[in-house]
Amino acid sequence: MQRREFMKKTAIAGVALAAGTSLFGAAGKSTITCKGYAAFDESGELKPWKFQRRAVRENDILFEVKATSICHSDIHTELGHWGKQTYPQVPGHEIVGVVTEVGSKVTKFKVGDRVGVGCMVDNVDVPSLQGKSEQYDANTVFTYGQSYKAEPTGISQGGYSDYFVVHEHFAVHLPDDIDFNHAAPLMCAGITTYSPLMKYQIKKGDNVGVAGIGGLGHLAVKIALSKGANVTAFTTTPSKVKDIQSWGAAAVVVSSPDDLAKFRAKFDYVISTIPYEFDMMPYIAMVKPFGNFTVVGMPVNFSQKIQTLALAATKVNFNASLIGDMKETQEMVDYCAKNKIYPEIEIIKADEINAAWKKVVNKEARYRFVIDPKTF
Amino acid sequence: MQRREFMKKTAIAGVALAAGTSLFGAAGKSTITCKGYAAFDESGELKPWKFQRRAVRENDILFEVKATSICHSDIHTELGHWGKQTYPQVPGHEIVGVVTEVGSKVTKFKVGDRVGVGCMVDNVDVPSLQGKSEQYDANTVFTYGQSYKAEPTGISQGGYSDYFVVHEHFAVHLPDDIDFNHAAPLMCAGITTYSPLMKYQIKKGDNVGVAGIGGLGHLAVKIALSKGANVTAFTTTPSKVKDIQSWGAAAVVVSSPDDLAKFRAKFDYVISTIPYEFDMMPYIAMVKPFGNFTVVGMPVNFSQKIQTLALAATKVNFNASLIGDMKETQEMVDYCAKNKIYPEIEIIKADEINAAWKKVVNKEARYRFVIDPKTF
Repeated sequence: MQRREFMKKTAIAGVALAAGTSLFGAAGKSTITCKGYAAFDESGELKPWKFQRRAVRENDILFEVKATSICHSDIHTELGHWGKQTYPQVPGHEIVGVVTEVGSKVTKFKVGDRVGVGCMVDNVDVPSLQGKSEQYDANTVFTYGQSYKAEPTGISQGGYSDYFVVHEHFAVHLPDDIDFNHAAPLMCAGITTYSPLMKYQIKKGDNVGVAGIGGLGHLAVKIALSKGANVTAFTTTPSKVKDIQSWGAAAVVVSSPDDLAKFRAKFDYVISTIPYEFDMMPYIAMVKPFGNFTVVGMPVNFSQKIQTLALAATKVNFNASLIGDMKETQEMVDYCAKNKIYPEIEIIKADEINAAWKKVVNKEARYRFVIDPKTF
Repeated sequence: MQRREFMKKTAIAGVALAAGTSLFGAAGKSTITCKGYAAFDESGELKPWKFQRRAVRENDILFEVKATSICHSDIHTELGHWGKQTYPQVPGHEIVGVVTEVGSKVTKFKVGDRVGVGCMVDNVDVPSLQGKSEQYDANTVFTYGQSYKAEPTGISQGGYSDYFVVHEHFAVHLPDDIDFNHAAPLMCAGITTYSPLMKYQIKKGDNVGVAGIGGLGHLAVKIALSKGANVTAFTTTPSKVKDIQSWGAAAVVVSSPDDLAKFRAKFDYVISTIPYEFDMMPYIAMVKPFGNFTVVGMPVNFSQKIQTLALAATKVNFNASLIGDMKETQEMVDYCAKNKIYPEIEIIKADEINAAWKKVVNKEARYRFVIDPKTF
């Protein structure tokens, strides 16, 4: 490391310490005591938990969490729907805050920067990710629940907590003109819907269907609208209709499979954000032949039955999308801020998390719960 | 109808009668007595059956069957794997022969023409099919087992029989340079594999994988090779390896899911002809990101489980293809004849059908059984 560089980093670490966090000792040397909420078993009940995060390494940043929101994936994971978990485990992968310390080799961020972190936090060989999508690299560490020897608890611990440590590669800059509470849900729900909508080049005048209008779906509606698409929203919840209309959707259908036949081959593109297995064929059949149908809502065990004959009859391409890569996550945050694509949010205290989770499962969220980290 | 046209048709009908079939009375007036083999229940056991086909209508042709081959779909259907059936039912949808009578409005064929029929036989509104793919039209009648009031037996009756009646739209001309026995399997296995391989524009140098080397798979290998592709065949039957190599496949893999990991993202295109549900994700993962994976082998109840997370990780388009439309069926027959793409066949007598069906299920067919219709 160049001396000049070393001086800069040392100075920055000094600022972090001066900022008053007494959570760690010598910069980058001691683990960081955090307060958060964790699952302790598959019951789906979270409780307050004090735990250690790793000390800041040379490529890491530490930030004070300013907002952290609830994704349906948090619930699926902690309930064991996607495989057996190690507990205690802190969920949460929509995390924004302000940098309080940077490692000696950090170049993207400085103390005081506003940052966001989504579903990924580390990779043992970041340089090898050049030109690759991090989400599909075998060495990428996801934000919570993954076996991860760098962490004192042995697994990655998510964002329902007051402080967060992440490899700088996996953090993005938040533009000044979006507040923390509205930025947090973008970090998973935003990128998960933005990525396929951009990949399939949704454009002015396209007929786009969005199935499932929750945290992901409501952002899919807004992003597709921002591209000039005619958006039809499919929800099973009549009480959401007025909201969805107010965002500008051309039509809102309170759908049962029987209602969908009249939309056969009407859409240029359909995205499903429904986070459970369902009878997907009537939805797939709404896409025009040779069009794309993308699944982003991941069901229990990621298992979805497909009728191959019906799929053949539609001539539709069935595909799935996970999240997005880091480059497009930065683009997405910038795009949403610039185009004023804000999630609909409800701010809650930490002790309301368990009630909020029940509301998410019962389709009562409107549309993203954001936890105030000062209440951990 | 023009008088000249009328005279021509009348003359043709005369020829048909003169040709000596005593199966019907006045041309187009009486039903046609046929001999064939039918399923009488879901046991999968076929027995000889004498039955009536409809009299030739103005757009129909009657032909003497010269070869009719066994498709795995015949077995799935008669065993009730794709839904409850009406019996007795004659299976068979790979049917070729010589025209012995044409209806008064037939324009495409004359008596003596060599013809082929595949999976479709009629549609109540053929003019409406202009520019459409017949296979996906709700009014299209499939070759056997479909409720069909034009037929004396109330259902369409397939090609395991000595004579066949079809709307002229659903027959193709057989080129002179392909014999009946080698032409028959093209009518389903040929078009089912040709259609997606052409749709996805397989070209010289492409790496193409074919999963399942039976009746469909072996034609997929040969058609892909004819386009200049490097073909890798995946089979579970070691005794097929030498055959497949002799056709020109670049590689033959006797596959278990574990063997497939090393092919991850190696293929431009993969087609699966496997006619049962299987763990498809390792096969899908062999396709390069944004490439296509097409299912043409249809499983029991057409039901196939997909892992959405694994699908997201592959970025592959999953799609299915049924058969093909009539225009491309004619193209396919012409293409195969011109390029000497001949199925591997074994000719059997009618009383060997039941044994042959067992061999098909046990992967012992090499690679298509063709029934000699003189033995019905």
